[in-house]
Amino acid sequence: MSLVVIYSGGLDSTVLLYQLRSAGQSLHCLSFNYGQKHLRELNFAHDNCLALGIPHLIGDLTGLAPVFAGSALTDRELVVPEGHYQDQSMRSTVVPNRNMIMLSLALGWAVSLQAEGVAYAAHAGDHAIYPDCRPNFVRGMQEVAKLCDYQQLEVVVPFMTMSKAEIVALGADLGVPFINTWSCYVGGELHCGKCGTCVERREAFVVAGVVDPTRYQ
Amino acid sequence: MSLVVIYSGGLDSTVLLYQLRSAGQSLHCLSFNYGQKHLRELNFAHDNCLALGIPHLIGDLTGLAPVFAGSALTDRELVVPEGHYQDQSMRSTVVPNRNMIMLSLALGWAVSLQAEGVAYAAHAGDHAIYPDCRPNFVRGMQEVAKLCDYQQLEVVVPFMTMSKAEIVALGADLGVPFINTWSCYVGGELHCGKCGTCVERREAFVVAGVVDPTRYQ
Repeated sequence: MSLVVIYSGGLDSTVLLYQLRSAGQSLHCLSFNYGQKHLRELNFAHDNCLALGIPHLIGDLTGLAPVFAGSALTDRELVVPEGHYQDQSMRSTVVPNRNMIMLSLALGWAVSLQAEGVAYAAHAGDHAIYPDCRPNFVRGMQEVAKLCDYQQLEVVVPFMTMSKAEIVALGADLGVPFINTWSCYVGGELHCGKCGTCVERREAFVVAGVVDPTRYQ
Repeated sequence: MSLVVIYSGGLDSTVLLYQLRSAGQSLHCLSFNYGQKHLRELNFAHDNCLALGIPHLIGDLTGLAPVFAGSALTDRELVVPEGHYQDQSMRSTVVPNRNMIMLSLALGWAVSLQAEGVAYAAHAGDHAIYPDCRPNFVRGMQEVAKLCDYQQLEVVVPFMTMSKAEIVALGADLGVPFINTWSCYVGGELHCGKCGTCVERREAFVVAGVVDPTRYQ
């Protein structure tokens, strides 16, 4: 199957990339610069694609800053919240309609490439906070992907019912170099260890019983 | 109602803008540079928004050229086809997943603005060729717009069952300055008069019985 993978350079999407590749799929990777503080993730995305020999496009959306305004991930006036990733305080890390935007652009590229669809790494741990990771949103996108072009496109979401710990366990099996993935939303030199996504990352390694190679601040 | 209008500077979306404004809606306009040959349309979009005092954002998607590749509207190697707009030859003017991309970005901006939804000018004449203007696609997008954020967003499509001639008649009633709208896909100084969208534009004025102020080549 030929797929465009939405690839942030984070832990989940890197495991997804390794999984799809080990299954023999033909892949193109698409990342986005939407003005996120943790642009650092794109370096990891670039390096991992290069190492795997997978074509990689970084889409520049910085000319659409007003679209992405008001999120703690993009707004320099807002502080990235610390705490548990399922806390209500994590709502400030929602980026307006991010997944529909990414999926629509990935689907466009899939049409251009004559690929069969797109893949992204939404997982069960995201459901609490992020509306655009929930199963009913995903099903809706799967529907419109069948209607937007002359041929029906697929939206492949293999981690939909998996926890992040299960993704870490799968990544360990696949030999994913976790050290070459980036999660932290704060945008420093090292993972802060305290923001929602760092807490989730740490916890996932502990629960999975996999050694966490991440250097936290 | 507060809406983000997807506004190309073309005839249909200019009539839509006038209609929504005359109905007292609070509007923001969003246009896109996706590398279209007829970039000229954006000047009309800019001027009309300025004249109406409506905030206007032109989103730069030129960094995503591979996504929009393979269309006669973006590819300098491909010739924009002449003929009737419902001919199969017009398929080459389809831009990959354009409407989902535009809608998703407009919905994102609507979330940031705390607006209630988005509007776009898909009409019945588009259904023959463009999958992403058809009623079932629109209904699908209306579904996902209700699921992508904490609040449900609307996708408003007032021209869904109208012909272009009916849109011209409505525009005449609303005092739309048709001369300040751009349709032609070719990208010359004047409307070519022969491409699908020029043929459709000309025909719509004739059928509506409205004087066509357009200068064709």
